[in-house]
Amino acid sequence: MSPGRSFQRPKGMRDFLPEAMMLRSHIESAWREASIRHGFEEIDGPTFEHLDLYTVKSGDGIVSELFSFQRAGGNTDFALRPEFTPTLARMAAAQGRSMALPTKWFAMPDLFRAERPQKGRLREHRQWNVDCIGLPGPDADAEVIAVAITALRLLGLTSDDVRVRISHRGAAAALLEALGVPAHQMDDAFTLVDRRGKMPSQEFQAQAAGLGLDAPAVQRLDDIAATRIPATQGAASIAGTHGLPESAVADLVELEGHLAARGLLDACDWDLGIVRGLAYYTGTVWEIHDVAGDHRAVAGGGRYDQLVSLFGGPDLPACGFGMGDVVLGLLLQEKGLADAAMAAAPRPDVFIVSSGSDEAEARLVPLATSLRDNGFHVRHTHKATRNIGKQLREASGCNARHVLILGDELQQGDVTLKNLATGDQSIMPLADIAVAIGRSDAD
Amino acid sequence: MSPGRSFQRPKGMRDFLPEAMMLRSHIESAWREASIRHGFEEIDGPTFEHLDLYTVKSGDGIVSELFSFQRAGGNTDFALRPEFTPTLARMAAAQGRSMALPTKWFAMPDLFRAERPQKGRLREHRQWNVDCIGLPGPDADAEVIAVAITALRLLGLTSDDVRVRISHRGAAAALLEALGVPAHQMDDAFTLVDRRGKMPSQEFQAQAAGLGLDAPAVQRLDDIAATRIPATQGAASIAGTHGLPESAVADLVELEGHLAARGLLDACDWDLGIVRGLAYYTGTVWEIHDVAGDHRAVAGGGRYDQLVSLFGGPDLPACGFGMGDVVLGLLLQEKGLADAAMAAAPRPDVFIVSSGSDEAEARLVPLATSLRDNGFHVRHTHKATRNIGKQLREASGCNARHVLILGDELQQGDVTLKNLATGDQSIMPLADIAVAIGRSDAD
Repeated sequence: MSPGRSFQRPKGMRDFLPEAMMLRSHIESAWREASIRHGFEEIDGPTFEHLDLYTVKSGDGIVSELFSFQRAGGNTDFALRPEFTPTLARMAAAQGRSMALPTKWFAMPDLFRAERPQKGRLREHRQWNVDCIGLPGPDADAEVIAVAITALRLLGLTSDDVRVRISHRGAAAALLEALGVPAHQMDDAFTLVDRRGKMPSQEFQAQAAGLGLDAPAVQRLDDIAATRIPATQGAASIAGTHGLPESAVADLVELEGHLAARGLLDACDWDLGIVRGLAYYTGTVWEIHDVAGDHRAVAGGGRYDQLVSLFGGPDLPACGFGMGDVVLGLLLQEKGLADAAMAAAPRPDVFIVSSGSDEAEARLVPLATSLRDNGFHVRHTHKATRNIGKQLREASGCNARHVLILGDELQQGDVTLKNLATGDQSIMPLADIAVAIGRSDAD
Repeated sequence: MSPGRSFQRPKGMRDFLPEAMMLRSHIESAWREASIRHGFEEIDGPTFEHLDLYTVKSGDGIVSELFSFQRAGGNTDFALRPEFTPTLARMAAAQGRSMALPTKWFAMPDLFRAERPQKGRLREHRQWNVDCIGLPGPDADAEVIAVAITALRLLGLTSDDVRVRISHRGAAAALLEALGVPAHQMDDAFTLVDRRGKMPSQEFQAQAAGLGLDAPAVQRLDDIAATRIPATQGAASIAGTHGLPESAVADLVELEGHLAARGLLDACDWDLGIVRGLAYYTGTVWEIHDVAGDHRAVAGGGRYDQLVSLFGGPDLPACGFGMGDVVLGLLLQEKGLADAAMAAAPRPDVFIVSSGSDEAEARLVPLATSLRDNGFHVRHTHKATRNIGKQLREASGCNARHVLILGDELQQGDVTLKNLATGDQSIMPLADIAVAIGRSDAD
């Protein structure tokens, strides 16, 4: 034991002191509220899974991005979850044919990446996952996009701040095929294109060449990625813009109607530069980005119709998304929207001030206990001082709604109750306090 | 990639399908509510820490109980957090002299143990931690006990179900010293006595002998552990019962008054058989157990006045406790109190039923969107059927408060709203729906 030794937090990990925690709780409340309004039910899974749950889809290459381990003396490989979707698919597969369809689930797991931490990308983050299993049509894609937008609106972000960029694996594949990517390398091409902005252009061109993309094709990709068509212009226009057959954008044309029914067209762009890196997407894919383009994606998702069967379950269509708390938190702070978290934080209903008389001291804790038992958030000073002014400043400092003063009136069984917002103050019997506080809370 | 392969959840880990999640959310709500009523603020820390944060206090022996790992290509040892207190102490130490005192924090981390899973003890569990830093007196110990009891009462557990067993390291040390344990082996003796019920008695006796406890002393320990004195009898009676000097129970005598002021004496027993295994406790220690004695401890805590300075911070008194969700969940199920979680689960405010007419179909999603934007939890069928009876059954099945029927009246701009609890049904303009649902919710 070495007393006095100091310890550091691991790199890329976060401490949440009360103020940081208020922001996380504020974000989580918006996530939960948006999910529930749309009829999704909350689930969760283990923080670590068997390693092969992640390698089976992605190959051993993913191992270097995972925190993996064995139990001392054990021989089973585990890994901290880097994403929630494999857990979701495992849970859905385990339900098998008994699962009610559609199943609409959300979760808010902590996820882990064994990478060098960067701005907006830490080794641990909390990610909201929303998934709809059993619905094959674009109405489900529109619904999960609506859930994401509802949460962002609850947090104060408008379509001036963030926009949805929508693409489709089929359309993107048709484009990449036309640029020279063979079908069997399509998944690798998606992964590479997804990382385009995150590597030096020389490295990108070298890797692209290996997938059949020559320099003119890479230039063409850059042009495609720079082309965003407002969704209000109609998905059919994508085909014309990029020289694709209309069949390649048929799903998006249908999606357009479902977005319009939800009033979302104004919030969306068609953007075939979005492909998503993960191999399991099969149709519509989308990301939400800040309009200024200063950050990584706020959210990303799409359709993955083969996922549940890949994990041993029945053949079920599915779509969903993930939204992390790191980029979102940065954006809220940048836009001045993080202060709302403080306003939403728990406020004391009453701060009890004691005059220091024997009577007041004897009443203080039993009264606090009784009010707490009635559901109120009650505080009082823990300092030795019974200076009334200092206690009143402490009450203001913690943003209490009321101050209750145990003073000389206590000899008649009365106390002074002051509403700190209105300044209203009155003397009333102790027995009336709970009702008085409750009534003014309901105002 | 191996389609169709099935995957297992790791041993000792849990999937939370919606019903299990409702119970966990119900428990967490009670934890959070009890914390807030008493003025504690929520914090969190990283899911893994540097390994030496755990070995510095407990020695390398603890490594076999931890899930530890390095990043691929890295050389830093990490460990999944087995308890939250070291993180709390690290965070408090990092604040140093700038920390407001007292600091009252709570957290609800996932914790990990690399042990063989047993009933009530899994490899991952969620644990509520409540800590009060900066208050040296027994009023703080009484307050954290009160927080724990408030949460259990909110969940429906009474003192017929669970009781607090209170002890004191000083009193227990005086007893163990009298039985032959030398001062320098006292920490080891606490650890061993804490595990007494969890190992074969032969093994216990062998280990006890190494700490200076012979067979008669072990018998005496058994007698002590079997002696619980109702707290209403007064802490002074502990000294008489166990032949201790009154100075050894002075803290408990003071604690008694603070428990009495909170109306908690009826819920507590003095029990010097409680020592807590962890080396960092310095004074009062306590556990909450089910009265029937069928389970491990529901909660455990105490005073650890040297902890913050051990982690490089200032010398600060502190006390607190942890309460896990596993034993508590078992207990709630056993007592028939888990059903309350279902009742507290989110219910749809309205389920929209469509007659299937073009008009109804066109209105369905925009109406759902508008109601959701107004804060309501809205559902409708995702099935192809527009059979009214089947849709009504689906509405009842998900426990909706209201059904809104888009029928023939829609041609006049009207809809039918039915309250499923009262059976009241009326036809009203579409524009009045939000107000009507909101009003009846407030009833």
